[in-house]
Amino acid sequence: MKKTVIVRVPATTANCGPGFDAVGIACTLYNHLELTINESGNIQITNIGEGSDLLPTDATNITYQAVQSVFAKVGYTCPGLSLTMTNTIPLARGLGSSAAAIVAGLFAANEILGSPLTQEELLDMATAVEGHPDNVAPALYGGIAISAMNNAKVETLRLLPPRPLSLVVAVPAFALATKTARRVLPKQVSLADAVFNVSRTALMVGALATGNYTYLSTGLEDKLHQPYRQSLIPGMPDVLAAAKTAGAFGAALSGAGPCLIAFTETQADAIGQAMVEAFAHHQVEAKYLTLSIDTEGAKKLS
Amino acid sequence: MKKTVIVRVPATTANCGPGFDAVGIACTLYNHLELTINESGNIQITNIGEGSDLLPTDATNITYQAVQSVFAKVGYTCPGLSLTMTNTIPLARGLGSSAAAIVAGLFAANEILGSPLTQEELLDMATAVEGHPDNVAPALYGGIAISAMNNAKVETLRLLPPRPLSLVVAVPAFALATKTARRVLPKQVSLADAVFNVSRTALMVGALATGNYTYLSTGLEDKLHQPYRQSLIPGMPDVLAAAKTAGAFGAALSGAGPCLIAFTETQADAIGQAMVEAFAHHQVEAKYLTLSIDTEGAKKLS
Repeated sequence: MKKTVIVRVPATTANCGPGFDAVGIACTLYNHLELTINESGNIQITNIGEGSDLLPTDATNITYQAVQSVFAKVGYTCPGLSLTMTNTIPLARGLGSSAAAIVAGLFAANEILGSPLTQEELLDMATAVEGHPDNVAPALYGGIAISAMNNAKVETLRLLPPRPLSLVVAVPAFALATKTARRVLPKQVSLADAVFNVSRTALMVGALATGNYTYLSTGLEDKLHQPYRQSLIPGMPDVLAAAKTAGAFGAALSGAGPCLIAFTETQADAIGQAMVEAFAHHQVEAKYLTLSIDTEGAKKLS
Repeated sequence: MKKTVIVRVPATTANCGPGFDAVGIACTLYNHLELTINESGNIQITNIGEGSDLLPTDATNITYQAVQSVFAKVGYTCPGLSLTMTNTIPLARGLGSSAAAIVAGLFAANEILGSPLTQEELLDMATAVEGHPDNVAPALYGGIAISAMNNAKVETLRLLPPRPLSLVVAVPAFALATKTARRVLPKQVSLADAVFNVSRTALMVGALATGNYTYLSTGLEDKLHQPYRQSLIPGMPDVLAAAKTAGAFGAALSGAGPCLIAFTETQADAIGQAMVEAFAHHQVEAKYLTLSIDTEGAKKLS
């Protein structure tokens, strides 16, 4: 017996502005996973594209571990498998590459077995591995995913804006580990800062849900994570300001960074160039990507 | 010359769940103001209904002050006026009676002069008097108002849920001053509690914007104000729990309390009775009101 599935999983931008640990958006940039189960008795792991020089090809590979966790959960003993990841999501940049790797493994393993697990079960498993739901939820479901942890269970509301929105992502040529970015956060914050973020989060979700994107200017402001993390990303305030000057509704850190993301309807190239130039003023090499919101999430291609 | 306008202004429930100082909802419970300008040289202030025994009838009356602030702003010298408030919004219960009084004065004065000021100007004036925008914004605009302060300016996004929603308000027979309720709040909170509220706020706004009301159960949870204020309202956790047991999507403190508010589509009476009974177990006399979302805000009737 030999069986193959190919799935694709989108990049995700999380911690969206004030929506730290809560709001993530799936983007039209994808990793592909080809998973084959066979009688070989072997495990073969291949990484192609982004990060292929860094990603493990043994049992420590997180996509492989995700595949095995589905097999274990449903009691399936796999006689042999090959797993090929073809990646376009850059690693450790704040675009959810690890979430995509985990979701790809879970989703492909579930598909290859005929979907014994529900999407909600896959989401809980992915969240347990990743530690927080805000990348894995949009990677799995697509769209804008609003997630809250309710005792160890994730609750995710998915929404799609009623009008097109472009996401301009400035990608610096250096990596930043989420762990490092977590370490700079404070344990205590002022009630005023917490309330600041509550109001901005409400405004941002309202803006995205209704298509009133001009509210994203104020709605993407944040006092809970970005001020602490900007020391890790040279030029960050200037790049965010450059994006707005070039016409973006608003701009924010993507995930734990170092990518920065701007929102626009029509000015994508001007904004992208302005962000790359602003990074260059701080001796940071960067490129930009113009993406849209992915609406499909993890998807079986064949 | 003699001229009269009659306006009505809705009650509002603010600090909605996790949306402390940010999210307010206009309700179908109204105060009416009849404002007449005349040549009498006198000021005559009359209060009818809720709070008529407590509200001042001299120049300290906030509705009168609001009227005068509009006159002052546009440079109008008023030769004489009479002002009659007919109130159904209970005082100091967390239903925005002071916001309604302020907005009524501003709105009526602006109407009687032929609307020299914009709605945004009225909102800024009302916010300056009230100290925060979350009641005055929905009182003026109707619907669900998401407000953020952006350097002394208020930014308000208004939204209406796509499906009907009933608001069941349990009204205890005691008053609670907002000032008292503010005093019990901490200056510092944990980042975890701030993030908890950010995720719930996102979920609540997403639920209200899309009509996926089941998300209100988690989406109305709060750790920034309700835990500190429940000591001021005997039985509060039990009343909120009773509302959910009786079928509410979720329940929360209304404004600074002591009113508690539950959200439902079809179970209003059962929920209202359960809330009143739960209050009674704690020796608190209460009644309940079943309201809807007011969509019109401050409105000239004639």
